[in-house]
Amino acid sequence: MSEAAQTLEGWFSLHDFRTIDWEAWKQADEATRRQAEEDLQSFLKQWSALEADKKGSTAVYSIVGQKADFVFMHLRETLEELNELEIAFNKSAFAQFTYPAHSYVSVVELSNYMGQPGSDPMENPEVVARLKPVLPKAAHICFYPMNKRRAGSDNWYMLSMDDRRTMMRSHGMIGRQYAGKVKQIITGSVGFDNWEWGVTLFADDALQFKKLVYEMRFDEVSARYGDFGDFYIGNLLTAEKFSSMLKL
Amino acid sequence: MSEAAQTLEGWFSLHDFRTIDWEAWKQADEATRRQAEEDLQSFLKQWSALEADKKGSTAVYSIVGQKADFVFMHLRETLEELNELEIAFNKSAFAQFTYPAHSYVSVVELSNYMGQPGSDPMENPEVVARLKPVLPKAAHICFYPMNKRRAGSDNWYMLSMDDRRTMMRSHGMIGRQYAGKVKQIITGSVGFDNWEWGVTLFADDALQFKKLVYEMRFDEVSARYGDFGDFYIGNLLTAEKFSSMLKL
Amino acid sequence: MSEAAQTLEGWFSLHDFRTIDWEAWKQADEATRRQAEEDLQSFLKQWSALEADKKGSTAVYSIVGQKADFVFMHLRETLEELNELEIAFNKSAFAQFTYPAHSYVSVVELSNYMGQPGSDPMENPEVVARLKPVLPKAAHICFYPMNKRRAGSDNWYMLSMDDRRTMMRSHGMIGRQYAGKVKQIITGSVGFDNWEWGVTLFADDALQFKKLVYEMRFDEVSARYGDFGDFYIGNLLTAEKFSSMLKL
Amino acid sequence: MSEAAQTLEGWFSLHDFRTIDWEAWKQADEATRRQAEEDLQSFLKQWSALEADKKGSTAVYSIVGQKADFVFMHLRETLEELNELEIAFNKSAFAQFTYPAHSYVSVVELSNYMGQPGSDPMENPEVVARLKPVLPKAAHICFYPMNKRRAGSDNWYMLSMDDRRTMMRSHGMIGRQYAGKVKQIITGSVGFDNWEWGVTLFADDALQFKKLVYEMRFDEVSARYGDFGDFYIGNLLTAEKFSSMLKL
Amino acid sequence: MSEAAQTLEGWFSLHDFRTIDWEAWKQADEATRRQAEEDLQSFLKQWSALEADKKGSTAVYSIVGQKADFVFMHLRETLEELNELEIAFNKSAFAQFTYPAHSYVSVVELSNYMGQPGSDPMENPEVVARLKPVLPKAAHICFYPMNKRRAGSDNWYMLSMDDRRTMMRSHGMIGRQYAGKVKQIITGSVGFDNWEWGVTLFADDALQFKKLVYEMRFDEVSARYGDFGDFYIGNLLTAEKFSSMLKL
Repeated sequence: MSEAAQTLEGWFSLHDFRTIDWEAWKQADEATRRQAEEDLQSFLKQWSALEADKKGSTAVYSIVGQKADFVFMHLRETLEELNELEIAFNKSAFAQFTYPAHSYVSVVELSNYMGQPGSDPMENPEVVARLKPVLPKAAHICFYPMNKRRAGSDNWYMLSMDDRRTMMRSHGMIGRQYAGKVKQIITGSVGFDNWEWGVTLFADDALQFKKLVYEMRFDEVSARYGDFGDFYIGNLLTAEKFSSMLKL
Repeated sequence: MSEAAQTLEGWFSLHDFRTIDWEAWKQADEATRRQAEEDLQSFLKQWSALEADKKGSTAVYSIVGQKADFVFMHLRETLEELNELEIAFNKSAFAQFTYPAHSYVSVVELSNYMGQPGSDPMENPEVVARLKPVLPKAAHICFYPMNKRRAGSDNWYMLSMDDRRTMMRSHGMIGRQYAGKVKQIITGSVGFDNWEWGVTLFADDALQFKKLVYEMRFDEVSARYGDFGDFYIGNLLTAEKFSSMLKL
Repeated sequence: MSEAAQTLEGWFSLHDFRTIDWEAWKQADEATRRQAEEDLQSFLKQWSALEADKKGSTAVYSIVGQKADFVFMHLRETLEELNELEIAFNKSAFAQFTYPAHSYVSVVELSNYMGQPGSDPMENPEVVARLKPVLPKAAHICFYPMNKRRAGSDNWYMLSMDDRRTMMRSHGMIGRQYAGKVKQIITGSVGFDNWEWGVTLFADDALQFKKLVYEMRFDEVSARYGDFGDFYIGNLLTAEKFSSMLKL
Repeated sequence: MSEAAQTLEGWFSLHDFRTIDWEAWKQADEATRRQAEEDLQSFLKQWSALEADKKGSTAVYSIVGQKADFVFMHLRETLEELNELEIAFNKSAFAQFTYPAHSYVSVVELSNYMGQPGSDPMENPEVVARLKPVLPKAAHICFYPMNKRRAGSDNWYMLSMDDRRTMMRSHGMIGRQYAGKVKQIITGSVGFDNWEWGVTLFADDALQFKKLVYEMRFDEVSARYGDFGDFYIGNLLTAEKFSSMLKL
Repeated sequence: MSEAAQTLEGWFSLHDFRTIDWEAWKQADEATRRQAEEDLQSFLKQWSALEADKKGSTAVYSIVGQKADFVFMHLRETLEELNELEIAFNKSAFAQFTYPAHSYVSVVELSNYMGQPGSDPMENPEVVARLKPVLPKAAHICFYPMNKRRAGSDNWYMLSMDDRRTMMRSHGMIGRQYAGKVKQIITGSVGFDNWEWGVTLFADDALQFKKLVYEMRFDEVSARYGDFGDFYIGNLLTAEKFSSMLKL
């Protein structure tokens, strides 16, 4: 048996992708639309306030292409809060004009491959800040889930801890070259959703997502051991932009 | 031909995942909603009474994310009872406000890899209790189906009984470290549904699901021989919580 | 090129899985429901009469779980009869309250791996009876489709006839141990539907399905060469039980 | 780099599988249904006339099972004609009572593995007739798409031309044994649709499809190098039979 | 770690495949249809004007078969413009008669495998023109997404730069033989959508797509390292043709 890497967990996460029912929206009367939009804006305010109180964080982005129209990425202390949040949204007047498009349940995670033996990472305020982060308000978001492969001779989970540590270090080096350009939030979903990890990237220049992911794909960790799910890309949706998106 | 492990079977199991049609729920009038909720509460009471009578057990959990809104996990003596239960629910006023989201048919199973030759496991009251269990009312549930892999050189079913027994023992050791933290119900579904086993975990701390499943993934049984289906995670839904979830 | 086994074909087969539209059923008025049920009962009678006349056979079972509510397994002399049967059903008042859930087209098949050279199997009345069988009215049904694998070193179709015959003999031995407990109908679907064979099992004790399929999975034929599709399990639906299933 | 086989292309092909909306059909009034059927019959006549003029060919078959209710297989000179044909059908009163179920775009193809060097196949009137064929009116149709495999050591496209020619010759020999029993139309779809080829078989005895495809599966070309998609099987639908299929 | 090839990026791209709701279209009154068509024609004009201004390019093609009825391929400077364009279309009267069928998000890309060390490709006006191209108005379009394979011994991302360069050069040679017959636009989608690249081909003779893709499939780059998604093929849809397609 190979040794499992230690992981640290922070806030629980729900990516909630939704599609707007444009036909229903256009057919609704002005008053109904106004009520729906007020509900939406009231949620956005409430989530901002909670973020200011350090009790969680929410990112709101539109999605390019037909996979979805927008995503709410919610970070909260507990799974119960995420569930209540979903249900409250589903009961709102605005939700009635949306369809669920995709969702992902995970928890902010730091793997300890790089940890120094003997030190307690939770004493490191930077570590704590990364486990309970304020989500960036960058111009673009990129989300994809991934697994470490277990296929024939390419089986990550049969490698020694040393081999995995060496490869993860090289992987981390690439990431570090994008510091300041791409902000990365890793969430773990083993036992929570269909893939092992979710990767959420934020950047002001969307091409940096492509350059980062492409460069990493040549790294052995990704080349031999990475399996990737669907990719979603989008643009920041401030309260004002959301409002103008809905204006007919 | 490799020797099949002996298994013991207990109650039949139906995981019934459902999604609420929130739009229909909001548009229904008060009287219709009241009737629907009374139907639901009456089922919940009936299932509790049956559990008290040791004739089966039912767990009710909400599901986080868009895969479903809630799950009923039913254990009963026969497939006929499970089928009657489904049909009775489908005819109820509440069912009309739900969509089927996913289901899984299996039977509570204990594998006998650890059995002592010469002893009759059915004489062991603990074994019997595990085959016809009262489902825990823990804060969280986790469900996923799995297969043992049959792929090229990673073919569980071509291994000798000894090799399989050794690996299962190591696997069991990990599980034992989570005693008191995670309660595990294994249900077999060979011949009943699309995967070979269903795994249902219960815990008060949802992070324990992640830690358990992740640690096991480095164990050879999972690393080389485990294939996993969709994961569902949720929160306990008492009759009161279900009622408040439905309140508009 | 490897030699193909000889096969014998009997009646054509259609598994027709359907889901009841419970909402429409509940909203229909009494007269409409009565008409629909009379249509259904009239089909059931007609199919019984045809079975008594040895012109075909039909099994009717409910399905446990959300995959379907019931299945009609029809055996008939020709594909045209199966098609007419489908269309007649689709035009009925009852069909309007059902959705298609899944179907499978195949033909009852006996493989001749065990055949004695020189003997004409069609002179064997038992063989003929197995090719045009009266479907059992056992308490339970199990259906799944399967392929023989063609993957790298596990390629059934590249094996010699001798190797295949030896493995099939061992496989048959397991089946024989379940004689009296499980009745098995093999239907071939090469050229007819998406898998190579359909397996339909009948038993009064549903656990025997699990024991049989699990034991066979350790047999080299299944372990290395078997690929399996979705499994369906259900309970016998007599005309009376069908009627009571539909009663609101 | 391995040498590509030369291919000859004839008419473009569209397999258009459709499902009848029986509920809408039953609820329509007599006049609407009459109009719809007249539209259908008018298309059938038009397609027959075009076939008589050697400007294309259309086969019309019902499909057994739930995958579709019928298929139109159209051969025409250009992709534009196929597209116009689809659109004209979609605008008809009959189309309103059907759903699209599946389609396949390809072009009649003859591979030149057997060609004699130095001879121009287009001077062979038999070749030309096979590239622009009148589709048979046999009792049954069978359709499936396929790829040549590119997986590890089973990679058709890495084989030498000689190896491929030898295997294709053996493959052709099997086909020739079914001359007079099964008529085969190969259509190429590389660059046009999701698989590399479509295979459409016609026979008066449906069991010949099974025997042919099964026998070929033991041939190395199929055993090691063939990947197959969904299979569709059906019965000839003359104008009269189509009319009686629609009669309530 | 293997070295990543340098890439150059130009305009962002959105392939927006849509299906017409023919039933709704036929049932709409004349005035509604006229308004819808005016909306469509106004978009087409606006996109032409933008193309004339070199601020982007849009290709409009019908799609043969049931996958979609038409595709808009939009090239624009930013992801925000693509998103605004989608939303504006979704709000139009015409969009109400269409369903989303498929979409693909990518960016025009030139890989630098062939680049001369020391030269700056952006100083090459031909390169710049290829990064911000005016999409051809050829008679036919072909679109498919692809990955470079990472499977066991066929792992593109574990090859040396030299090996990849040699293979890409051979690949490019085939492409060059089709110069004047097929115009190819490669768009990169690593980090943006579910595959690594999108390939969009334009030709006046649709058979050239088949010949090109088939010939390339024997090239090692495709044979061993290419994985392909769904293929779409269509015909040029000028404003006039679109109008006549919609005429009832």
